[in-house]
Amino acid sequence: MGGEAAVLFANEAFYTAFQTRDISAMEAIWAEDAPVACVHPGWHALTTREEVMESWQDILSSDSAPAIVCRGAQAFVSGDSAFVVCYEQIGDNLLVASNLFRREAGGWKIVHHHAGPCNLAPEALEEEPEQGMVQ
Amino acid sequence: MGGEAAVLFANEAFYTAFQTRDISAMEAIWAEDAPVACVHPGWHALTTREEVMESWQDILSSDSAPAIVCRGAQAFVSGDSAFVVCYEQIGDNLLVASNLFRREAGGWKIVHHHAGPCNLAPEALEEEPEQGMVQ
Repeated sequence: MGGEAAVLFANEAFYTAFQTRDISAMEAIWAEDAPVACVHPGWHALTTREEVMESWQDILSSDSAPAIVCRGAQAFVSGDSAFVVCYEQIGDNLLVASNLFRREAGGWKIVHHHAGPCNLAPEALEEEPEQGMVQ
Repeated sequence: MGGEAAVLFANEAFYTAFQTRDISAMEAIWAEDAPVACVHPGWHALTTREEVMESWQDILSSDSAPAIVCRGAQAFVSGDSAFVVCYEQIGDNLLVASNLFRREAGGWKIVHHHAGPCNLAPEALEEEPEQGMVQ
């Protein structure tokens, strides 16, 4: 797979772990070697792997874990680093997310996730199919 | 300068350009070689350098351009890529921002900026001095 396709594949793996509440898969997609951080919507930044993983354990084990669909993902690759901007559809709410990746031994791994409200959906999103994910 | 200090220096240059409404400095801090994107608070993602720079021209030339102070910046460096998480104080409002950097010929350059609301300030922010910026 080319760089962008591989990064989008890793991005889909992240949202699949989110959708299926698979904490093992979620832990596996986050980088082990590079430092990581995470900004959940409205939260302050979590800046250690331990804090980030605790937050995912809380979110994925919650009965109110949101059904989430990733849409309109675009990858930007430069050497061994990349980022994806995409939209998170949660019911009628739309968030915009930035996901940063680093290439590690096992492939592309997330080093940072930042999601927040998107009050103005891009026009292109209305015309694009969803990312092939099952809700 | 070590990697983290150099990245924080570049992050300060970004906020200095923002504060002083210096569009030339703002253009200079964004990467030329790597692809760039930008998510302003509540906006959808801007995904070309042309769109990103037009947005900064609009923001920095506006009479209502906000007085912004960067606080609590932390840098995470891996090879030739890095990101900073920090807080943007705009009056009584607090935003959380993620700024991604790539090392290019002239030093560390921004490739992505994502800012959104922070409803829960980190405890550490209350104890930290501001980043030495003049409002």
